[in-house]
Amino acid sequence: MSLRYRVLAALLGLCLLFPAQPGHASDKDGEDGYRLWLRYAPLDRSVGQQYDFVGAGIALDGIQSPTTDVAISELQTGLHSMLGLSVAEHPLAHRPAITLRRIGAGQADPVAANCNLAADISGGFSISVSTEGDEPKIQIAAFDDIGLLYGSYALLRHVQQGKPLAAIAHCEMPRIAQRLLNHWDNPDGSVERGYAGRSIFDWWRLPDHVDRRIIDYARANASIGINGAVLNNVNARARMLSAEYIAKAAALADALRPYGIRVYLSARFSAPRDIGGLPNADPLDPHVRQWWKAKADEIYRAIPDFGGFLVKANSEGQPGPQDYGRTHADGANMLAEAIGDRGLIFWRAFVYKAENGEDRVKQAYSEFTPLDGQFADNVIVQVKNGPLDFQPREPFHPLFGAMPKTPLAIELQITKEYLGFSTHLAYLGPLFEEALDADTGIGDIPKPVASIIEGSDGGHRTSAIAGVANIGSDRNWSGSHFDQANWYAFGRLAWNPSLSSSTIADEWIGQTFTRKPSARQAIATLMLESREAVVDYMTPLGLAHLMGTGHHYGPAPWVDNLERADWNPFYFHQADRNGIGIDRGRNGTNALSQYSARAAVRFASREEQNLPFLLWFHRIGWNEQIATGRTLWQELVLRYDRGLSWVEEALTKWNGLKADIDPRRHAEVADFLKIQKREAKWWRDASLAYWMDRNGQVLPAGAEPPATSLEHYKGLSFPDAPGN
Amino acid sequence: MSLRYRVLAALLGLCLLFPAQPGHASDKDGEDGYRLWLRYAPLDRSVGQQYDFVGAGIALDGIQSPTTDVAISELQTGLHSMLGLSVAEHPLAHRPAITLRRIGAGQADPVAANCNLAADISGGFSISVSTEGDEPKIQIAAFDDIGLLYGSYALLRHVQQGKPLAAIAHCEMPRIAQRLLNHWDNPDGSVERGYAGRSIFDWWRLPDHVDRRIIDYARANASIGINGAVLNNVNARARMLSAEYIAKAAALADALRPYGIRVYLSARFSAPRDIGGLPNADPLDPHVRQWWKAKADEIYRAIPDFGGFLVKANSEGQPGPQDYGRTHADGANMLAEAIGDRGLIFWRAFVYKAENGEDRVKQAYSEFTPLDGQFADNVIVQVKNGPLDFQPREPFHPLFGAMPKTPLAIELQITKEYLGFSTHLAYLGPLFEEALDADTGIGDIPKPVASIIEGSDGGHRTSAIAGVANIGSDRNWSGSHFDQANWYAFGRLAWNPSLSSSTIADEWIGQTFTRKPSARQAIATLMLESREAVVDYMTPLGLAHLMGTGHHYGPAPWVDNLERADWNPFYFHQADRNGIGIDRGRNGTNALSQYSARAAVRFASREEQNLPFLLWFHRIGWNEQIATGRTLWQELVLRYDRGLSWVEEALTKWNGLKADIDPRRHAEVADFLKIQKREAKWWRDASLAYWMDRNGQVLPAGAEPPATSLEHYKGLSFPDAPGN
Repeated sequence: MSLRYRVLAALLGLCLLFPAQPGHASDKDGEDGYRLWLRYAPLDRSVGQQYDFVGAGIALDGIQSPTTDVAISELQTGLHSMLGLSVAEHPLAHRPAITLRRIGAGQADPVAANCNLAADISGGFSISVSTEGDEPKIQIAAFDDIGLLYGSYALLRHVQQGKPLAAIAHCEMPRIAQRLLNHWDNPDGSVERGYAGRSIFDWWRLPDHVDRRIIDYARANASIGINGAVLNNVNARARMLSAEYIAKAAALADALRPYGIRVYLSARFSAPRDIGGLPNADPLDPHVRQWWKAKADEIYRAIPDFGGFLVKANSEGQPGPQDYGRTHADGANMLAEAIGDRGLIFWRAFVYKAENGEDRVKQAYSEFTPLDGQFADNVIVQVKNGPLDFQPREPFHPLFGAMPKTPLAIELQITKEYLGFSTHLAYLGPLFEEALDADTGIGDIPKPVASIIEGSDGGHRTSAIAGVANIGSDRNWSGSHFDQANWYAFGRLAWNPSLSSSTIADEWIGQTFTRKPSARQAIATLMLESREAVVDYMTPLGLAHLMGTGHHYGPAPWVDNLERADWNPFYFHQADRNGIGIDRGRNGTNALSQYSARAAVRFASREEQNLPFLLWFHRIGWNEQIATGRTLWQELVLRYDRGLSWVEEALTKWNGLKADIDPRRHAEVADFLKIQKREAKWWRDASLAYWMDRNGQVLPAGAEPPATSLEHYKGLSFPDAPGN
Repeated sequence: MSLRYRVLAALLGLCLLFPAQPGHASDKDGEDGYRLWLRYAPLDRSVGQQYDFVGAGIALDGIQSPTTDVAISELQTGLHSMLGLSVAEHPLAHRPAITLRRIGAGQADPVAANCNLAADISGGFSISVSTEGDEPKIQIAAFDDIGLLYGSYALLRHVQQGKPLAAIAHCEMPRIAQRLLNHWDNPDGSVERGYAGRSIFDWWRLPDHVDRRIIDYARANASIGINGAVLNNVNARARMLSAEYIAKAAALADALRPYGIRVYLSARFSAPRDIGGLPNADPLDPHVRQWWKAKADEIYRAIPDFGGFLVKANSEGQPGPQDYGRTHADGANMLAEAIGDRGLIFWRAFVYKAENGEDRVKQAYSEFTPLDGQFADNVIVQVKNGPLDFQPREPFHPLFGAMPKTPLAIELQITKEYLGFSTHLAYLGPLFEEALDADTGIGDIPKPVASIIEGSDGGHRTSAIAGVANIGSDRNWSGSHFDQANWYAFGRLAWNPSLSSSTIADEWIGQTFTRKPSARQAIATLMLESREAVVDYMTPLGLAHLMGTGHHYGPAPWVDNLERADWNPFYFHQADRNGIGIDRGRNGTNALSQYSARAAVRFASREEQNLPFLLWFHRIGWNEQIATGRTLWQELVLRYDRGLSWVEEALTKWNGLKADIDPRRHAEVADFLKIQKREAKWWRDASLAYWMDRNGQVLPAGAEPPATSLEHYKGLSFPDAPGN
């Protein structure tokens, strides 16, 4: 055989290895973000070649199911895309490179026994590597099919980041059992607090047509371990429980099932009256109880693995058991009985009342702690991370640790209602991490919020975490490229609350933007600093809820004319000539008393490490010196300026990454950073103009005066703000 | 050289011709329709090889501009995608394969003089082929850059259909000067009568961010000759004329300009009062006139080539000059003066009044014909194709031909408000063709509506056609794959109203679904028959406006309780025990008198060829024998059944095309046809149940009874219907 022939044959081999896609103009669009972190960009050969052995194929050691089909198909897609190799499925006897092994119920994981994979925790898996002859073999082992799928995604995540084969062996088990997205999607296709277009659920054409996007949504969720989705808004329409909509939800459930995702519905408490023809919705009325039982049965006939109901009751105008003089426990337990062992009731603790004069941040605790022990064992009380409402920063919610007899889910907001919508770069990993890591101060050693949720010592039936989704019909899913990272971070932390936000950022960048170490590091730094910058230019030093009324876009700390006192930004700062902030200590609202002694001591402190919560718990004079050595007023101005400067510098740094990022995504992010820069300045200027109007202070030397008058900022209106 | 070597070398050559794209998982999605008719699928070599000479490159003979850049880039993209060839740009001296030649103002087109390309008609072009040595050379010549771009797209359209080089030489000039899309998009991102998601105009992030989709929108439009876009809804918000929104429109105008597309805005007539601080909007008030002049100047400073205003006035609650006792001409002329020679005013003739007892279909004619001759010469009166409102079928609007001193634009509705939204397959080419070809009966020889619009004998300043867009944020742009064809057909007919809807369908299929002749023919047949089927199952025999109130989804012929008589479906059929339909002859409303004598004779006829308009112009007894030999009742039932059967058969035929269509689009269309089948049956059954309730007739032998009771159909409600 001639050399020439052999060279040609080798070239042809390469050609066939990377099958041609002649002509498709698909890359005309460039990188549009649709593929999320399942982008599977080709690996440099220097990195990829260590994985070439996977060309020997894949086998299933277990019984085939829709979930194992997905696992194998995803491995084939991802490995082919990254390595250019076809990874065929073979019988086990062929000893292929990758084996998915379903461990029998009575068995232990033979290769990863030291992982303590538990048969009763769904989704755990081990990845191990052995070598036979010269060829490595990878085994993914799990006690259930969803564990095999999660293990497959873990393998792909490892390879996609360009990590070495030598580091791939490990095992994982989820720390929280129920990892849910909460979609605030309405049946008309709008999304409350959605900044990424319309609902991805095309209710209008369901159940007859299930869009392909739903499959890609399922893949993305399964790849990070999300195993539940509440399909509709907590401000629920009753018709979501009609036969028509149950059929639609069932079609989605069928599509999501192979990916291990159960569907849930938000239930309007007054549904028996709204659509059931009953005169009331009293949870102690036998007809009402019967209606819910029949409704649950109807749903389970259509969706055998239906997850359960999420309920917002007696909150912000929603109906609830208190309309009939009953308690939250009465309401939740009625639904719990209707659904029985088949599912769960998520009952939200986000309640506050117009007629209640108590400090708004105290009301949920006051209302729920007396009910501890009264809830049925399939009820989970779902508590927002902080006692107010998804602010850029809040102290942890005092309910965490205060209801030991009740499983509590934490509710995080992935969609950025209060952090610049989908335009501002604000990576929420640090916010989620701060919320999960916060020490409740219960007991003698640190007891973070995460441990309460995990229920490690509660003996509860299950554990849960919920994230309010930021997903919509926009091509890039989240309205911006960086907001995808918040979905990703939620999923990863839900799986393992001990992961650090920096590890998660690095993982995400490596799978999405670039594997180049210098760029990866630079982007990670931007991400990790970004949320603190938003706190600085929006709500520094423990301020909160200063956003424009209703839409929550832009600054409006001056608003003080709303029907309910606790809807007014003014309620949350109470700035006057003398000072600003709320005294929540003994001489004030005494919200501090709702925390454990250790936590209360921490929050009562005015030391430097507690400055992030200073004005949340204290009322301080403008000229009072604080822990930094500056006066409060000087420190406030400094923080606004610091936030704005950060955005300016972030834009410069991002522009410096032009060579490392594909042109389309680079340009889109740059456009958004320009908007953020203008809006950060607006936040700073409007806030300072208002504070000066209240306090009569002058700006510290060197600080730039607001660009225009307070009246100008007050006069702005935003009738077209999204998500409202 | 061994045979084996030569075979290998040939294979390798093929490989290199189609450069590999290793790894991208982009086709995981499959064909999603985003690329529209600019899909540029690779050609079979047997067809493509005749074009391989284009590998010799491309040159510009003229001065480079953003528009010539687009032309060259699009040729490079399209030819590379279809042929696998790089088509480099060379200097003219290199004698490349394709030359774009800008003809000087004083010159004639040297190669295509017999085309009569006119220097004063923008956009005309010639394509000619010569041969030097063995290699063909193509020249695209035009008097303006947009002509070069249109010629480039014409070349690509030819190649993309797999047509032979030998047939490529031809020349074209547009028959109508202004070819506009009317977007009914609102600043909050919703789209009135939009069934394809949200607005593609991301008002919220404009002007700072212009989405990539806008460029692809521009490409699609330019490729079919559309040269204007009204960006916002005719039910206009005044704030669209604020400085804030002008800046947003300017950013879009900058993006669209290279593609020859001018932007227009819908203007709310009361804007001087709404946002201008004036006490009224009286068009004869000097302050009002001054406000509009200043506003026009402000817009032209931001958008030097701003197209002008579209106005819906004194119609369906919109403000207008009649609020001040002035005429439509007073209102239009005030705006015409403000805008001057810089642009155009499109003034809609879609008017009807609650307090007017005249037959609704007569009112526009009554109101506008007395104004003929009173409009400034930069005003165009925009008239819907029929006198009612975008029904599945209407007779042509009697204003066409009745205002010889005024340029009239025809307004067609591309979005299917009354034809099953974006779910039903209803190719509108035949509807548009019917509207444009309708003989107005003016003069002695046929004078189609198109000739009135073209203004061939009116001596008007310009000519115009408008289509209400069906474009939204859905990935496939139009909500369904087949609805893309309606956008395409509108553009092609706007360019040349003499094109047949079958030619256009064939072109579109060849560029989108498949080039395979048998499949192409089968799909074309489905498309061409589809609109008549919708007429059959919704509004047969000249019935109209029987759709559900407000949302216009589904049948509701029984509705008779709305505030305004002429909003009620009942108003349009008046069915009782004796008969159905409206007598619009001399003994009835005499709407016939608004037509020319020849047209009136035609519409007065009950002969077979006039059955499509029978009940529009006549009231007929249920048992009266009509031209088919059947009774009216028998014929009605037959037509409902025929419409439903067509959908059933269409689904079967489509399923038979499975091997010829990519799986994703095939499945999506099949899903939609299943929905259409169910809804066609609903239309038939609900309509027949109601007619039987009115007329006391029994169904003809063999006809299937309605599936359920009239009360059931009456009880259905659709709070989530899109586009409302």
